[in-house]
Amino acid sequence: MGFEQAWLSYEPREVSPEWYGIHGIYADCGGRITEHAAAELKAAIAGITGKEPVLYADLPETEREACGEMAGCILFEKEQGLKEGGYHLFERKGALIIGASDDRGFLYGAFEVIRQLQLGNSYQGIEIRKEPVMPLRMLNHWDNMDGSIERGYSGNSFFFDKDEILVNERTVTYARLLASVGINGTVINNVNVKDAATWLITDKYFDKLRQMSEIFGDYGIKLFLSLNYAAPIELGELDSADPLSEEVRKWWEKRMKLVFERIPNLGGFLIKADSEGRPGPFTYGRTHADGANMLARAAEPYGGLIIWRCFVYNCRQDWRDYKTDRARSGYDNFIGLDGTFHDNVILQIKNGPMDFQVREPVHPLFGALKATNQMLEVQIAQEYTGQQRHVCYLIPMFKEVLGFRTYAAETDDTVEDIVAGKTFKQTKCGMAAVANTGNDENWTGHDLAAANLYGFGRLAFEPSATAKELAEEWIERTFGKDQEVLEVLLFILMNSWRAYEMYNAPLGIGWMVNPNYHYGPNVDGYEYDRWGTYHRADYQGIGVDRSRQGTGYAGLYREPNASMYDSPTSCPDELLLFFHHMPYTHKLQSGKTVIQHIYDTHFEGVELVDEMVERFESLEGKLPEKSCRRMLERFLHQKEHSREWRDQINTYFYRKSGIPDEKGRKIY
Amino acid sequence: MGFEQAWLSYEPREVSPEWYGIHGIYADCGGRITEHAAAELKAAIAGITGKEPVLYADLPETEREACGEMAGCILFEKEQGLKEGGYHLFERKGALIIGASDDRGFLYGAFEVIRQLQLGNSYQGIEIRKEPVMPLRMLNHWDNMDGSIERGYSGNSFFFDKDEILVNERTVTYARLLASVGINGTVINNVNVKDAATWLITDKYFDKLRQMSEIFGDYGIKLFLSLNYAAPIELGELDSADPLSEEVRKWWEKRMKLVFERIPNLGGFLIKADSEGRPGPFTYGRTHADGANMLARAAEPYGGLIIWRCFVYNCRQDWRDYKTDRARSGYDNFIGLDGTFHDNVILQIKNGPMDFQVREPVHPLFGALKATNQMLEVQIAQEYTGQQRHVCYLIPMFKEVLGFRTYAAETDDTVEDIVAGKTFKQTKCGMAAVANTGNDENWTGHDLAAANLYGFGRLAFEPSATAKELAEEWIERTFGKDQEVLEVLLFILMNSWRAYEMYNAPLGIGWMVNPNYHYGPNVDGYEYDRWGTYHRADYQGIGVDRSRQGTGYAGLYREPNASMYDSPTSCPDELLLFFHHMPYTHKLQSGKTVIQHIYDTHFEGVELVDEMVERFESLEGKLPEKSCRRMLERFLHQKEHSREWRDQINTYFYRKSGIPDEKGRKIY
Repeated sequence: MGFEQAWLSYEPREVSPEWYGIHGIYADCGGRITEHAAAELKAAIAGITGKEPVLYADLPETEREACGEMAGCILFEKEQGLKEGGYHLFERKGALIIGASDDRGFLYGAFEVIRQLQLGNSYQGIEIRKEPVMPLRMLNHWDNMDGSIERGYSGNSFFFDKDEILVNERTVTYARLLASVGINGTVINNVNVKDAATWLITDKYFDKLRQMSEIFGDYGIKLFLSLNYAAPIELGELDSADPLSEEVRKWWEKRMKLVFERIPNLGGFLIKADSEGRPGPFTYGRTHADGANMLARAAEPYGGLIIWRCFVYNCRQDWRDYKTDRARSGYDNFIGLDGTFHDNVILQIKNGPMDFQVREPVHPLFGALKATNQMLEVQIAQEYTGQQRHVCYLIPMFKEVLGFRTYAAETDDTVEDIVAGKTFKQTKCGMAAVANTGNDENWTGHDLAAANLYGFGRLAFEPSATAKELAEEWIERTFGKDQEVLEVLLFILMNSWRAYEMYNAPLGIGWMVNPNYHYGPNVDGYEYDRWGTYHRADYQGIGVDRSRQGTGYAGLYREPNASMYDSPTSCPDELLLFFHHMPYTHKLQSGKTVIQHIYDTHFEGVELVDEMVERFESLEGKLPEKSCRRMLERFLHQKEHSREWRDQINTYFYRKSGIPDEKGRKIY
Repeated sequence: MGFEQAWLSYEPREVSPEWYGIHGIYADCGGRITEHAAAELKAAIAGITGKEPVLYADLPETEREACGEMAGCILFEKEQGLKEGGYHLFERKGALIIGASDDRGFLYGAFEVIRQLQLGNSYQGIEIRKEPVMPLRMLNHWDNMDGSIERGYSGNSFFFDKDEILVNERTVTYARLLASVGINGTVINNVNVKDAATWLITDKYFDKLRQMSEIFGDYGIKLFLSLNYAAPIELGELDSADPLSEEVRKWWEKRMKLVFERIPNLGGFLIKADSEGRPGPFTYGRTHADGANMLARAAEPYGGLIIWRCFVYNCRQDWRDYKTDRARSGYDNFIGLDGTFHDNVILQIKNGPMDFQVREPVHPLFGALKATNQMLEVQIAQEYTGQQRHVCYLIPMFKEVLGFRTYAAETDDTVEDIVAGKTFKQTKCGMAAVANTGNDENWTGHDLAAANLYGFGRLAFEPSATAKELAEEWIERTFGKDQEVLEVLLFILMNSWRAYEMYNAPLGIGWMVNPNYHYGPNVDGYEYDRWGTYHRADYQGIGVDRSRQGTGYAGLYREPNASMYDSPTSCPDELLLFFHHMPYTHKLQSGKTVIQHIYDTHFEGVELVDEMVERFESLEGKLPEKSCRRMLERFLHQKEHSREWRDQINTYFYRKSGIPDEKGRKIY
């Protein structure tokens, strides 16, 4: 099995009998994207069934008539009334019809057919009608132009090496993988734009970017770039990047014209400004709106989007300061600007207020901003969730985030509703994931981490899918239809986030990791540091008081969320220490004390890992050897390393509290 | 004032009147070293008094007679009966005589004259007779060939850059500085020998090494190299480095012949083997003695020394393991080999059993090894003592180490006696310091850190000098004779180690630093790591039980030391937590509880720093501007950073113990 194809490996597999009768594909009603869709479909059927259908577009007009009846054919047909990217699959007298209103609809429809095929479903009587729920479904790569990847755990970049842009076979496979799960935009370079990457918007890189963007374009994907806010200065052309300066405004107008002309399939730009040392409008006493709008005006004539990150906080905090609350900073920085952004600006908001911890509450800007385009940013790069050495299937977490009711409206008020554009009737919105890919053969380091890439795309397209359904799909498409493989891998994936959370920092407090690396336990790792990430544990208790007696963060939510979080009795257990400083002896809603919860979850988390590994080992011989070996190596590491988590956390709290484990298990 | 000359800056200064009458130097009784000594003396007198004396060696024989009377001259005269490097200064009818039995004696005698001159002393009636107390007085540089310095805090290497060897004016100044304080050997490359440095013993570098070693030779300094034990393999010539293999033995014989022929002033080699990932004889199931002796035999024909480091321990320990004790490892690895090393092997032993912490007990191998050449290794690179951003004058610590009675004999049993060769009648022994220099203009980053370089050399030559005397000398030689400058800098230097210890890890426990960097407080930084460096603090107490109930480490000392350390009532306060796990409420010999001691020392340490800084600021205008600015910048950092230490340590222990400060000071 070719793992460089991930879930698009079209090896022969047993499928429902009628697929073997597919002999033709009619797909002459669209443009380049539809052509690529049809070609993909042909390759999939040929590979899986061993019988290559005729692509009628490839035949001269005269020969097409001779092909006989439509039964056993797949027909692409224009159908009115579907949203962009929507499709309608149905059977008509033995023919399988893909109806769509546009090119992207045919593309996603074709990939839906491939999915059905791989899952072994029959197409007899099929009736599927789907439209993408979120308008923008994007990946954000944090790839540097020297080939390294910030927070990359799957090898080096396949976009860049030694300050050059790579365009090759992998670019195509990448585009196919993205399109197959409905992703329609990708940012290829790190949001921390430095050095060579600042020059991506210059003549130096246009040719290669154009080539790359054309490949992406064939699969319905817009290319985006991360932008250096200080580019006018760093490119040596101006002394200022003041967004209200006429000179700066003109510079960007000229630059945008040039860039969009030279890279026709460019979607726009992602910007991290005034954050963690990055330049931004604050330097000139201007607001984020001033900065974003200036760029937006310049990009507007070309339909370009300006995606502006809300990850702005004081990263030089004093740990002795109990008043400043990093969790508040995104909200405090942006809430006053609601309604002041141009229509082609989108604020990109992380799922939680801190930074991709294993458990965080939903970002309070969701539901607070009412007149601003919004995107949800999640991270499938497992920066804080095991770095693709531990297995951690994140779709269940994303489902919880999307399902969170903000109470910004009486109905249709979930995060999903907001970023789908439903709540505030927006079209420039959606979901982005920090990518987990690299040039490793299997794309994602841990073979099981590919489920996050797969699941993210599918979820953004179709958020009603359950985490379990997406996991099942991915397993069957990747490893074939074997009940035992399915059951075991499903057990592993569906328990993995829970297990990781169990042996990690307890009850929503987060951050108990080694600084910089963000891997491995270190309870006090960020406790006395400048990053605003504290647990405040002492001999009596632990947690950050974010209630109205504390930093007031809980009050940033709309009611009834604000009151729910504000009180330790109604705050959900899993977030208790995020919102409250509690004694170790406090009884949780679960009936356990905080300290006993810590001990129990840490012992049980490791037991759960042991069970995963044991069950995984039972699959030996049923999985492709190379892939199995890669996973086993990681599982053995996880087994050992989860013990390190368990023992360090338990020991730390036992030594601090002096309260023994009720069950008398070994603590050091 | 030229700070690139450190204490050898011969700027004009007021000196005792008779120095202005010095008009001639007779120095024709020695070789190259004596010539360099005479030239140095001439330059010093010319610079300081403004009157250049005639160097009679420079005159043709016939003109010398015409120079008139000997009064007002300095005469180098052969004097029998002085040890190598010893000298005898005295006045004879207005002439200053430097008597010595050998070239090095004249060199050190000349530098003694310069010292007297700089200190402004009269030479009338002078009578000084000194011999170096330790035979070997060495620096160990941890310079890498790429130009970086492991644990270097003063810029980059001035020996290496981009895998090339640098020989230039700084090489000469370096040699002069070393000779001026009596240092007679230097290892120029890092003990962790990797990459290019492995090739230092090949043709590639011989020419440059020879040039460098000749410059050193002019100042009585032997060049030493750190050796890669696996060189036969890494140079691609053999498959093994087994010390008992005939092939390996022969390889080294040939290699040593070549190296010593091509670098005539080579003194020998320093080796770190089987430690922290370095290769060594353990790979072949051989002992350190097997390894060292094999090399020693090969180096013997050329008078070469093999200096073998005893810093060997398990650096993959499990923090959950309470039995393994890193402190024991040097002793346990080497004690059984006593008496088995060749005569030209020297074991180099760190001052303490761990690794250059601000406070450690003396290494138990001192006094235990009776039939093995020994060198004491100290570190003037301030790896764990503030990295040359904090001031920390280490000579008081070295004095304590040297004065420690081992009870290996009834008298003459101190560490000083042992490494001076007195206790066991040895001549291949002495003291080495890990160097604190780099290519910073002032050599040592912090201008005051030069006092450690100065003091180390002087101490190895003349260990009876007090730390205060050496500090005074260095201050006056560097900054001139100003009573206020002297008083303030002396106050700072003499209080600096004490202050650093006060706000650092308490009571000898050590290691509360950030991993890797070894800078800045991090109480649990090494607590759950693999390095064998734990404090075991819990809610009741802190410390490592190294008594006979614990790891038994205390018992490695000879009596009465063993009993003294073994009991918490007799163990000195400053090492209590190194030897014992004690409750926070335990009363120290000082009468304070452990926890109150922690609070008090941390508040008072910071107050002491404040006083230093305040007093330093009072010197404004009295110090060279550049040097003053450099120091002030560091002092302000130390002021702030010592608060970080205070607050983190106090907060950690308050949070853990719940015991408030008796004096109610602010703890976070």
